[in-house]
Amino acid sequence: MSVAVDAMGGDSGPAPLVEGAVAAAREWGIDVILVGKEQELARELKGCGAADLPVHIHEASQVVEMNESPSDALRHKKDSSVRVAFELVRAGSADAVVSAGNSGATLATAMFTLGRIKNVRPAIATMMPTLKDPVVMIDVGANVDCKPRHLLQFGVMGSVFLEALLNKPRPRVGLLSIGEEDTKGNLQVKRAYDLLESSDLNFVGNVEGRDVFKGDVDVIVCDGFVGNICLKLSEGLAESILTMLKAELGGSFMAKMGYALASSAFRHFRRRVDYAEYGGAPLLGVNGVGIICHGRSSPRAVKNAVRVAHEMADIDLTHRIEGAFSSARELSVAQVD
Amino acid sequence: MSVAVDAMGGDSGPAPLVEGAVAAAREWGIDVILVGKEQELARELKGCGAADLPVHIHEASQVVEMNESPSDALRHKKDSSVRVAFELVRAGSADAVVSAGNSGATLATAMFTLGRIKNVRPAIATMMPTLKDPVVMIDVGANVDCKPRHLLQFGVMGSVFLEALLNKPRPRVGLLSIGEEDTKGNLQVKRAYDLLESSDLNFVGNVEGRDVFKGDVDVIVCDGFVGNICLKLSEGLAESILTMLKAELGGSFMAKMGYALASSAFRHFRRRVDYAEYGGAPLLGVNGVGIICHGRSSPRAVKNAVRVAHEMADIDLTHRIEGAFSSARELSVAQVD
Repeated sequence: MSVAVDAMGGDSGPAPLVEGAVAAAREWGIDVILVGKEQELARELKGCGAADLPVHIHEASQVVEMNESPSDALRHKKDSSVRVAFELVRAGSADAVVSAGNSGATLATAMFTLGRIKNVRPAIATMMPTLKDPVVMIDVGANVDCKPRHLLQFGVMGSVFLEALLNKPRPRVGLLSIGEEDTKGNLQVKRAYDLLESSDLNFVGNVEGRDVFKGDVDVIVCDGFVGNICLKLSEGLAESILTMLKAELGGSFMAKMGYALASSAFRHFRRRVDYAEYGGAPLLGVNGVGIICHGRSSPRAVKNAVRVAHEMADIDLTHRIEGAFSSARELSVAQVD
Repeated sequence: MSVAVDAMGGDSGPAPLVEGAVAAAREWGIDVILVGKEQELARELKGCGAADLPVHIHEASQVVEMNESPSDALRHKKDSSVRVAFELVRAGSADAVVSAGNSGATLATAMFTLGRIKNVRPAIATMMPTLKDPVVMIDVGANVDCKPRHLLQFGVMGSVFLEALLNKPRPRVGLLSIGEEDTKGNLQVKRAYDLLESSDLNFVGNVEGRDVFKGDVDVIVCDGFVGNICLKLSEGLAESILTMLKAELGGSFMAKMGYALASSAFRHFRRRVDYAEYGGAPLLGVNGVGIICHGRSSPRAVKNAVRVAHEMADIDLTHRIEGAFSSARELSVAQVD
């Protein structure tokens, strides 16, 4: 069981990726394949004292840039680190991919290389911190124009993910909307409500924006446009609150002390908001395991992503998701619009 | 120039509404008409020392409950405080309405009673705090299924509002999306991008979730479903951060001190997040002035709402918005889909 790490993606080059991957190999004995420019990676690896660890390098001569269009990357960079990583999985030489590169290109490459589970729309899940346990929000950006049945599929995948990976039986699934009643929401959400309600999921109804962080549901279903805005809004607001707090407090000794104390709490909170700290955002619904990390992932985030990717492959999450969709009822519901 | 206050709406009865309205009359000499059950309001008014102030009571025998459906309220409560308040405006006996009641019913009653500006989809605007000046977000809940041209209209109304009310020339208008490039977003947003770009507005492109609180734009355009979720998510997150901070810090004396200092900064921030503190959320695009306040508005919030409503009527905002739409170019753009 090995994890291919796209070691060239990410905002600050290979260093945090190599370091994080090596840490996962050292801490948990996970086999890691670093994919990218061999010389560059060998140089990085040297400084990590990884000689006796199960870490290997696999050459890929190209790199997809952060601002490159996914379709251009697919067409013109057939030897990119992300493409080669997913091809290792397709060939059976690796069992999962972790990438901190251009997330649109990672998504497109995963779908192109591995294909998707039959009748299923792949989606990106992410963990959000709440006052209780973290909640899985799905989709946070893979699909910007969803049909109601796609929202149902996201609910199924989010549930299977939580059940299988965190041993949470019958996760509570909520639908992101603008009021609790089933009459609230746009057309898409109102129809998705009916589909979710008649499904086998543990559907608990609509969740309003203000309840996302309460932790009273386990899975929040939304379309990728709304989910992506919510995710980024939350990150931005947490940052802005810290900045405002600083301005509000700066001045006296006690105020500075208060800020120092508060800001450590804030750093902790921001770590909780940053999905990379949970091991990145799993891409669910493709025929294989892929995790999309933040471009500015720390080595610790990469390490966690490698661990979660390994676990997802180990418990065969892909087949479990496929299983959930091939049970007669879910499939028939999924095919309705 | 007088403001009709729906004095029966709101979560905690007439008290904060009467108190806030009286404060506006006292502080700025604004004529206020309290609409609702006469005896009840007279009793409230007695305690406020408003004898010499321009505050009057106008009888309305019914009250729309917070959980009542807007259409039921319209059909069955023709003598409700919110309905009577808007009818005073239609009859020319008042110039604006402030309501902290059931916001769906307030919206429906305003549209039914006053009608809307020709070819325009009314929308709710709200002020959000940022690191710089507050930003106007529009729509935050009046329209859950928008066409691209409605987003253009929201941009026009938000601009006119800021220009007229806050003397901000050529406000920068941004479109809420999931990436900066014009190719990012769902179909609705990509088409709205083109409409905004070819309009006379000072359109600066897409704004991502993480940039909402930076204050680099003046107006953020979005559909009411997305806007309502963003607004409530922001409120909920700010609350949750405070709670997490408390858990994080509780314990030693210094930690408690830090929390005390931080929490005063937080209360300040939460006040900034609560749109009621800016005088509520103006309903733009109807033939008249209406402000929707939070159900749990403080007297101070009501007072500010009365001031802003008075100002909107005073500068004849409704006709300015109408004017913006009857200029040939905007109108022709607005009619395209």
